[in-house]
Amino acid sequence: MVAFGGNALLRSGQKGTYLEQIANVEQTCEQLYNLVARGYFLAIGHGNGPQVGTVMLQQEAGRKVFDLAAMPMDFCGAQTQGSIAYLIEQGMNRVLVRHGLRRRVVSLITQVVVDKDDPMFLNPTKPVGPYYTREEAEAFHEETGAIYREDPKGNGWRKVVASPKPVRINNIEIIRQLVEVGNIVITVGGGGIPVVDEDGVLSGVEAVIDKDLASALCASQIRADALYILTDVPKVYINFRKPDEKPLDVITVDEAKRYLAEGHFTEGSMAPKVRAGIYFVENGGKECVITEAGQLENPACGTRIVKE
Amino acid sequence: MVAFGGNALLRSGQKGTYLEQIANVEQTCEQLYNLVARGYFLAIGHGNGPQVGTVMLQQEAGRKVFDLAAMPMDFCGAQTQGSIAYLIEQGMNRVLVRHGLRRRVVSLITQVVVDKDDPMFLNPTKPVGPYYTREEAEAFHEETGAIYREDPKGNGWRKVVASPKPVRINNIEIIRQLVEVGNIVITVGGGGIPVVDEDGVLSGVEAVIDKDLASALCASQIRADALYILTDVPKVYINFRKPDEKPLDVITVDEAKRYLAEGHFTEGSMAPKVRAGIYFVENGGKECVITEAGQLENPACGTRIVKE
Repeated sequence: MVAFGGNALLRSGQKGTYLEQIANVEQTCEQLYNLVARGYFLAIGHGNGPQVGTVMLQQEAGRKVFDLAAMPMDFCGAQTQGSIAYLIEQGMNRVLVRHGLRRRVVSLITQVVVDKDDPMFLNPTKPVGPYYTREEAEAFHEETGAIYREDPKGNGWRKVVASPKPVRINNIEIIRQLVEVGNIVITVGGGGIPVVDEDGVLSGVEAVIDKDLASALCASQIRADALYILTDVPKVYINFRKPDEKPLDVITVDEAKRYLAEGHFTEGSMAPKVRAGIYFVENGGKECVITEAGQLENPACGTRIVKE
Repeated sequence: MVAFGGNALLRSGQKGTYLEQIANVEQTCEQLYNLVARGYFLAIGHGNGPQVGTVMLQQEAGRKVFDLAAMPMDFCGAQTQGSIAYLIEQGMNRVLVRHGLRRRVVSLITQVVVDKDDPMFLNPTKPVGPYYTREEAEAFHEETGAIYREDPKGNGWRKVVASPKPVRINNIEIIRQLVEVGNIVITVGGGGIPVVDEDGVLSGVEAVIDKDLASALCASQIRADALYILTDVPKVYINFRKPDEKPLDVITVDEAKRYLAEGHFTEGSMAPKVRAGIYFVENGGKECVITEAGQLENPACGTRIVKE
């Protein structure tokens, strides 16, 4: 299983036109092809940060200009699962045709169950969507119950949502079956559409699930051999950006936990990736590789988290 | 296989809030449950007219307010496949839990191949998205090549796209396998994401595929026994809204063709549904039933198109 961020497609510095996104996704898929060429059956999890941000801005503009109803996070996440999966299907198809390999690429809309009593719901911290004035934020809070916080940089007020832990992936058996027969399966887009399960009834919630954690859960449950988490550095470092900075080649779960405890990894960046790697290796996986997409042609790339 | 319009979820007269859509979809799924209760393994195709219209308005507003890039029809269609499938999954799950039936509901992002030489591309007629001034329309045409036509009612200029015939449904074997083991499968949303196939490379095109025709093609290829096409009348009529109006119970393909040729059915409304029914029955299906969702509890409901 491989997980990569939504910024692989919608890159900062670009306007995000259709042609830019098509070119970006094809480049990413060409890099992922190295894993397919090594014989892996592939499942793909991806983020949606920039994409869901765009959808929320468009909804806010649509509300202002055309008085259209704006939708909560679960609905917006479902929209981006559709559009991003479509782009990845297109890019991967082009790459497979170029290399003369026949594999089906199939994308599932994926709900991911979180615990409604997850403590993260008590303290939502992840800012999403556009900035509002204090008055707008207060009015929305009255209307929908959503929570808004002032941006520390003074840009205004933004909705904050919780980032609860993924507990169960809906339709996981189908994902496993589709991968096991050689299909390339795109799933848990944006970390999955967050839902709570009350006596079997799934209902959407305003939340964002970490895509690396969701991918690690998925990878474990489809019994993947390896989890590749793609980022923008070739390896994980200790003492990152200090004089004694040191890239890591292979570390055990215990070492990874120690480095985490020592504060070597930034929250919101490398720390959740290392935690996802630890989860995967502690739950049946052989190794988690953290690296950048451009390194994938080298089978020994990245930082490997292994059991012992 | 059952096909219904996007207006089952986003209804005219409503603002289209999240809670309205959730309630609408649950009602529709409760009606579809009659087919599941009769023992059918179910595939669901759905339209996206109001939804893709909303996305295009939001994109236009986002372009004006935040200078965001607007996306072509294939991308917008993919977004609505995600969001509508998610809502149907939610509604169907609630209904299944209420009735104590265990079935998985699984949604596939579905590309549908059209012929790049389809004559419909020479004469795009389907208006989509917001109205523009003549100057805006001319500027967009210069920029993207899209075609704009003046609205006959004087509301301004709108993009028009082709409505080519569906030729092949991507991943149809996977759809068939998933349905055959009892999963409820949601697919060909909005008629499918329109793509052309050039030597195996699929590329999106600005077009809209009729969802009834796409569902008929899908139903035929998954070897469905019956195709239910839902609309807003209980039966198909000849001499509709005339003094000698007559509802049809069972008609043969030959009768359906004759009525079509005699102009009994409106283009853009009943005619494409009857054509979809003819296609299905001529390509392996036993019967096509055209009716409204509220009639489904009656096994003898609607107008049935049969071979002979």
